[in-house]
Amino acid sequence: MAEAKKLTGAGLRGQSAGSTALCTVGKSGSGLTYRGYDIHELAEKSTFEEVAYLLLKGKLPNQAELTAYIEKIKSLRQLPDALKTVLEQIPKDAHPMDVMRTGCSMLGNLETEASFADEQDMADRLLAVFPSIICYWYRFSHDDVRIETVTDDDSVGGHFLHLLRGEKPSELHAKVMNVSLILYAEHEFNASTFTARVCASTLSDLHSCITGAIGSLRGPLHGGANEAAMDMIEQWSSADEAEAEVLGMLARKDKIMGFGHAIYSTSDPRNGIIKEWSKKLSDDVGDTVLYSVSERVEAVMWREKKLFCNADFFHASAYHFMDIPTKLFTPIFVCSRLTGWAAHVFEQRANNRIIRPSADYTGPEPRNVTPIESRT
Amino acid sequence: MAEAKKLTGAGLRGQSAGSTALCTVGKSGSGLTYRGYDIHELAEKSTFEEVAYLLLKGKLPNQAELTAYIEKIKSLRQLPDALKTVLEQIPKDAHPMDVMRTGCSMLGNLETEASFADEQDMADRLLAVFPSIICYWYRFSHDDVRIETVTDDDSVGGHFLHLLRGEKPSELHAKVMNVSLILYAEHEFNASTFTARVCASTLSDLHSCITGAIGSLRGPLHGGANEAAMDMIEQWSSADEAEAEVLGMLARKDKIMGFGHAIYSTSDPRNGIIKEWSKKLSDDVGDTVLYSVSERVEAVMWREKKLFCNADFFHASAYHFMDIPTKLFTPIFVCSRLTGWAAHVFEQRANNRIIRPSADYTGPEPRNVTPIESRT
Repeated sequence: MAEAKKLTGAGLRGQSAGSTALCTVGKSGSGLTYRGYDIHELAEKSTFEEVAYLLLKGKLPNQAELTAYIEKIKSLRQLPDALKTVLEQIPKDAHPMDVMRTGCSMLGNLETEASFADEQDMADRLLAVFPSIICYWYRFSHDDVRIETVTDDDSVGGHFLHLLRGEKPSELHAKVMNVSLILYAEHEFNASTFTARVCASTLSDLHSCITGAIGSLRGPLHGGANEAAMDMIEQWSSADEAEAEVLGMLARKDKIMGFGHAIYSTSDPRNGIIKEWSKKLSDDVGDTVLYSVSERVEAVMWREKKLFCNADFFHASAYHFMDIPTKLFTPIFVCSRLTGWAAHVFEQRANNRIIRPSADYTGPEPRNVTPIESRT
Repeated sequence: MAEAKKLTGAGLRGQSAGSTALCTVGKSGSGLTYRGYDIHELAEKSTFEEVAYLLLKGKLPNQAELTAYIEKIKSLRQLPDALKTVLEQIPKDAHPMDVMRTGCSMLGNLETEASFADEQDMADRLLAVFPSIICYWYRFSHDDVRIETVTDDDSVGGHFLHLLRGEKPSELHAKVMNVSLILYAEHEFNASTFTARVCASTLSDLHSCITGAIGSLRGPLHGGANEAAMDMIEQWSSADEAEAEVLGMLARKDKIMGFGHAIYSTSDPRNGIIKEWSKKLSDDVGDTVLYSVSERVEAVMWREKKLFCNADFFHASAYHFMDIPTKLFTPIFVCSRLTGWAAHVFEQRANNRIIRPSADYTGPEPRNVTPIESRT
């Protein structure tokens, strides 16, 4: 019957648009899993490079595979000269997500995916080079230096911090980045991943798919919540002030970023993990304000609205404690989610039909073109 | 009931993913309409600039509006120096769709959409500047010249040919470009347009939406069919040879591009229109081969397979008769479809909910992380 085909929800909410073996989100009892592994266990026992390998290549690597993979990623961090020139053309006040989108797109001109047989190498290259792209632009436009983008850091997160600061990060900071990148790596058919899959369904190249996904993650309804949370909490100098201000915002029905989720209904399994690391960083830097402000906001939102922190809220303070500029929060998300996007592209290609839905027509009835001299 | 929510077709085929007032495709009796106007009437009685105005601003312009719009577009054809520098970094052998994607993305860094209140101006700028982007890169990389991208041509199509050739096109060629751009302007929820809408649903900026759409149109299952058709027909030196070769291809079950359509079942309403203009161009250049080859392929495909030409097939010969390099066929599609994409972005923004479908999980059951030393 024709009626059954009609989608009941706007925005395809709750509607299946395909299948995936990569991830479950909010499935009863399991929270968030990547290829069957619970996010808590991955964050505790593995590195981001193991998770990237898991998502992209289908299994957790053994030691020899992991060592080889880390060496491969380390060898792919240099930027082509033409890409450096492009990044140098982008002004300091540009949106960093526009920089990521343009850097990825430009790379597609220089290292085009000639065949899907190259897809793994293409994804590994993007994984290695994305921190180089954002940090090269950031340091050039903000500090007027042309940085060397090759470092000997084993981890993607450590490499990112090294490029940003010009020195090797502490073990604690590298560890937190590692956990953060694991938490952001994959999340089923969210809007940016779905963008990548729609693009992949035309059999376009990987750079096109990832470029499109970056553009979608840029939207304030998707990425950017941790940046918005940071902008909010850094205004307050005590937990009591935070409580008063949040109550005021709630009374005015202002939007408070970093809370609730489209899929999770009672908690975000990533929150407890990043919150614990934010606390460690707070202790490490001797913070007496930001973490207690964050905790109080969490308590007030739960008490007043039964709204829980999502993955973004305690990421704000965690990144801030590591001196990461707020405007680079979403580009870090890109450096991580790239792995999920690429894995979804591979999955789409392996069992593809072009994604081409229909639409309900709400426009004018058939009509004739009025001669231009008679138009009003 | 939960069952009713399940989509029955792969690739969302035949499933409504939203509503639109812009276009009907294959609706009974009407073929293809833009805001209620039949494509035949628009191609016969209007210009592409009127159609762009119709799609972007909601109505056909009166004479004063059209005159002002043409002047506005003419005033927006220059490239920023930083964008020229970027285009000069892209090698000659790059995929021209990668050039378009990168040019659009780069422009987003230089002329960022600060507010949705600017969306009309942003779209008009892209409409004016896309021919400049592709032709500047093409002439620089292939002919080693830095062209002036401002011309006094009233039409987008005439401007494109002028930049490509360095001289004003004939009236006939400007007219054919005009018709071609009208035919390609809009086509409901095709994959590239749907990409733009998914991106728009995160409330991202227009450059991100259009950049993503270009990436999707790049895929060989979407744009590119006219290029593939050209590569095929230019191999043959007579209609009889074409017939023999097509019969051989059909026997080998080779894919023949430019035929059939995901939505249309008996004919593509755009085919008769562009075919007529291809014939006029064939007569104009004194062609005795390519048009008759094309006609024969059409006859054989219908006779043998009941497959009809879609919009792309006679576009191949038409563009070829105007000396347009085959690899620029899909970028021309971009210069036209941009209007439909942008109009869909505006429509999505006006009544938005983030597009975030679900997926059927087909992966492993919950499992524990094996210590790395025990992994195989």
